[in-house]
Amino acid sequence: MTDCDEIPADHPRHDSLVTRHRIEAGVDAGITSRQGLIAQGRGEAFDYLLGEETIPSADRAARAAAATLLAAEHPVLSVNGNVAALVPEAMVQLAETVDADLEVNLFNRTEKRMAAIESHLEDHGAREVKGRNADARIPGLSHERAKVDADGIKAADVVLVPLEDGDRAQALSEMGKTEIVIDLNPLSRSAQVAAIPIIDNILRAVPRITDHARDLAKAGPEAIEQARTDFDAAEALDAAEARIRDGL
Amino acid sequence: MTDCDEIPADHPRHDSLVTRHRIEAGVDAGITSRQGLIAQGRGEAFDYLLGEETIPSADRAARAAAATLLAAEHPVLSVNGNVAALVPEAMVQLAETVDADLEVNLFNRTEKRMAAIESHLEDHGAREVKGRNADARIPGLSHERAKVDADGIKAADVVLVPLEDGDRAQALSEMGKTEIVIDLNPLSRSAQVAAIPIIDNILRAVPRITDHARDLAKAGPEAIEQARTDFDAAEALDAAEARIRDGL
Repeated sequence: MTDCDEIPADHPRHDSLVTRHRIEAGVDAGITSRQGLIAQGRGEAFDYLLGEETIPSADRAARAAAATLLAAEHPVLSVNGNVAALVPEAMVQLAETVDADLEVNLFNRTEKRMAAIESHLEDHGAREVKGRNADARIPGLSHERAKVDADGIKAADVVLVPLEDGDRAQALSEMGKTEIVIDLNPLSRSAQVAAIPIIDNILRAVPRITDHARDLAKAGPEAIEQARTDFDAAEALDAAEARIRDGL
Repeated sequence: MTDCDEIPADHPRHDSLVTRHRIEAGVDAGITSRQGLIAQGRGEAFDYLLGEETIPSADRAARAAAATLLAAEHPVLSVNGNVAALVPEAMVQLAETVDADLEVNLFNRTEKRMAAIESHLEDHGAREVKGRNADARIPGLSHERAKVDADGIKAADVVLVPLEDGDRAQALSEMGKTEIVIDLNPLSRSAQVAAIPIIDNILRAVPRITDHARDLAKAGPEAIEQARTDFDAAEALDAAEARIRDGL
């Protein structure tokens, strides 16, 4: 995270400033799209309303996500342009911690962006990045938007899809995947269809899932099972909505 | 609005789709900046929370704005990149209706963007566009951000600043201008410092000010005075905040 060394960790708007900085760098690197910039703005507004902090229900969701990834047969972490721009290192660390694949998966897919994101992840320590084969399809989506790897997302039992479009999130859910979504809008379709919606800034959420995964891996199978069953998605969405109301 | 003929007026997300479409076209035309795209996203989030409709207090604010522009000695409508991209025709019509100047005024000012926005406004019917002379300054702002026309914003008694940055809005207010702000976040500094904050989507707000202005011009000086005195800025901000809370 050398790009953000100038912003002190205790700066009251630290996450917001780091996020903005990385998204702008993502545009320069050909990673972040126009839609990505607009999505970033939507996220800023919701994070502002949440108080720019991880609420307790989001922490429980991150713990449930960690448990679910650890218990999965074949977990895959989906990476789009904003995810790659914002948390490349944290995604690589999470993939290693829970033994998951990383797969680049773009709503606006071009070969150039696919390549830029793949090499950006590799620059941040990724050893293998899936998504270029595109030898399988998500049913119910138009051609370009449906492309996935047969031995990646197509074969996964658990998928982490941070900052995902609603159509895609719904289609993945209909494929029977256990879907973990990170999204700042508790009313978005992505958050609504997820088995585990984490209503938090991705900058805070991804390292938190990794921390919980390390913790749970040490604690053992019973703790993992407990974290999974303790979580209630509807309750988490309600808590986030209430915080946005009260936070105003 | 020929660019958006394909989107039916009764489409439930009409404003959102038109807005997105125009902002993207604004990028292609060199009018919308990266910051503008992010700001667009923030606006989308707040408009979503407002229910994507003009609330009664925003209509009263639009009426007070119309009255204040009609009663002004020298009203100026400030235009930035997003304003030009989103409502060029509506701004030209409002300027004609209330006999105001149009002045291009950019937070990220470059000669190229100034020229692109000026010609975009001219393409939509503007006869005179101020802002290129830049022979005066707003006190308290850094050099580039302070530039205004001596016979434009500098000399104005009433300024409409839609989608304005907080620093600029505050500095204009400190110059003693009567400031009308259009902003979707009732808690933003721009909205807070405005004499008349209109908490609404600019796509809905600008034509509405024009409609009220036509109406009030016919109704005469007493109606104009009434619309100005009837308006309470703090009440309007509270109503928008309450709507965002309850509307969820």
